[in-house]
Amino acid sequence: MENTHEKCLKLAKRIYDLDTNVYQLSGSSLGRTFNGDKDAHISTLATLIYTHPQGHLLRSEIALIGNMARTIHNKSERSRMMTEYNAILKEIEQIPASFGSVDIVDEQLAALNISNLHRQASPDDHLIICIGRTHGSAGTDIGFALADALKINYYDVEIFNQVLERLEAEKDSVADRDNFATKLHELHEALPDTHAKRRISDFNRYHGLPKKDAVFFNQSDLIRDMAKKEDFIVMGRCADVILTNNHIPHISIFITAPFQQRVRRMMEVNHLEFKEACKLLKKLDRQHERYYNFYTGKKWGDAVNYDLCINSACYGIKESVELIERMIDKYPTKK
Amino acid sequence: MENTHEKCLKLAKRIYDLDTNVYQLSGSSLGRTFNGDKDAHISTLATLIYTHPQGHLLRSEIALIGNMARTIHNKSERSRMMTEYNAILKEIEQIPASFGSVDIVDEQLAALNISNLHRQASPDDHLIICIGRTHGSAGTDIGFALADALKINYYDVEIFNQVLERLEAEKDSVADRDNFATKLHELHEALPDTHAKRRISDFNRYHGLPKKDAVFFNQSDLIRDMAKKEDFIVMGRCADVILTNNHIPHISIFITAPFQQRVRRMMEVNHLEFKEACKLLKKLDRQHERYYNFYTGKKWGDAVNYDLCINSACYGIKESVELIERMIDKYPTKK
Repeated sequence: MENTHEKCLKLAKRIYDLDTNVYQLSGSSLGRTFNGDKDAHISTLATLIYTHPQGHLLRSEIALIGNMARTIHNKSERSRMMTEYNAILKEIEQIPASFGSVDIVDEQLAALNISNLHRQASPDDHLIICIGRTHGSAGTDIGFALADALKINYYDVEIFNQVLERLEAEKDSVADRDNFATKLHELHEALPDTHAKRRISDFNRYHGLPKKDAVFFNQSDLIRDMAKKEDFIVMGRCADVILTNNHIPHISIFITAPFQQRVRRMMEVNHLEFKEACKLLKKLDRQHERYYNFYTGKKWGDAVNYDLCINSACYGIKESVELIERMIDKYPTKK
Repeated sequence: MENTHEKCLKLAKRIYDLDTNVYQLSGSSLGRTFNGDKDAHISTLATLIYTHPQGHLLRSEIALIGNMARTIHNKSERSRMMTEYNAILKEIEQIPASFGSVDIVDEQLAALNISNLHRQASPDDHLIICIGRTHGSAGTDIGFALADALKINYYDVEIFNQVLERLEAEKDSVADRDNFATKLHELHEALPDTHAKRRISDFNRYHGLPKKDAVFFNQSDLIRDMAKKEDFIVMGRCADVILTNNHIPHISIFITAPFQQRVRRMMEVNHLEFKEACKLLKKLDRQHERYYNFYTGKKWGDAVNYDLCINSACYGIKESVELIERMIDKYPTKK
């Protein structure tokens, strides 16, 4: 304890001295952070560092010195001050629970987040991008254009329904299990036998559920199986939650835009009057919200439920695609 | 009109033929999008393209063909199919109000968004990053670390208050206007005379307002003036709305994390019990929400009010900094 306290006092002195030096070198009479009694300042600073509940106060004091130091005209003096500034920052970081030392990361979420470039990637990982969006935000157009830019597959509710309908049709028309498994195999490109077999039992398992639920669970299984075999973009379907629950890495993005922009776009795309477009949008938002909440227990569109949210009105379709490419480090200039 | 209709019919035929060819080349019995009567399919497709209110249906059909085409093993055949696929997409884009053709962009918002790399940049633009955040999300740590990584200034409420207090002190102790203007000048590094003079009249203008409002307006002026002269990161203060209202380019980012993660971090940083941390967080969120709503009329933390939202629990402090660097094209490997 004695040691930490002494360390804090030493650091406080260094901060005070840095301020004095920066003040002299930058030459501004307003540039000094600590005016008045030197010992009192050092003591206050040491207490701030030691007790640290007000970490943000200490950070602001130091930031102010850093801001001033960057204005020093003489390059070598500036560099000398910034070196000491950075050294002080490093030492503060070593102090338990000082600012910057307690991370917010949720290790489990971070481990599944493919836009987290320093995570431990597995060779089995695929580039899977889950896009949720409000109606009229052009989220679907962005997803489609992104799939094209990245040359990966694109899946939405219509495609899932088509695939599932065909699987059902196949199931009805094919009598023996082996043949059915072979067809599944074809569709999903070399789906391992275990999966195909599980799918068959799954079809039986969900028998008896309300159709809506059966469709949801079948889609969930399809997403989970595909995620083991290919890169793709998936629109909606609560895919982010399904993948997280199955510990499959992905990135989840929510795309939205201000209501007035979405209305404007709805009117243009669907040839609607203003009032009609407003009414339809509100209805679709409510439906979306209920679906997501029903199957995930979470609030649709709340930023805490996605890795990232993008306001498409600030970017447009093309720029949104490029922004996402930069985020996942598939930067256009690198292509 | 006749022309557009004919064009749609031609396109429908090309889509049907592409599907047939992709089906033959990919060899999957499940890979065919259009089964059954050829003429009926082409007619439906042509209507879909022509009437386009259901743009997403057409997109899904085409996406399905594209997904299949990508699985063709023979490289030159695959490339031939993808060329036709892309050509069809391009033609569809030309049709008014077809998918991808109606953008969501708000030209005014996009013009002010510095992470929009294709926007018309002015030589007067500065790199200004506005960060809003929920308490406990480490948003402040991310902002501070980002300022350090980008070597630009960092401003938060404490720094603004210190600067404004000193300005007030200067104002009281200095009798003549010229001298006051000179001091302001020093602090803000060559602030043009017009600004300094306006600031003085602003001090008078806000006289008589409730102190909270006077502080807000003084901070707003400070942010607006600084934005004309330097790159910086600003935490909170509704800076995003102030800059947008003054037509000053910037990027606005909201940082948040799930409540449970923020509580965990609050407990660790501030040595609080679980219940205390929950209570405090809820109180701080409410305060934040009221402040933002009072001065902007907008909903705090709603993704439509920012360019981007980041869930810091999915990244942690260091990775969040790098993600933002990639977004604004200050990619770490380029530094």
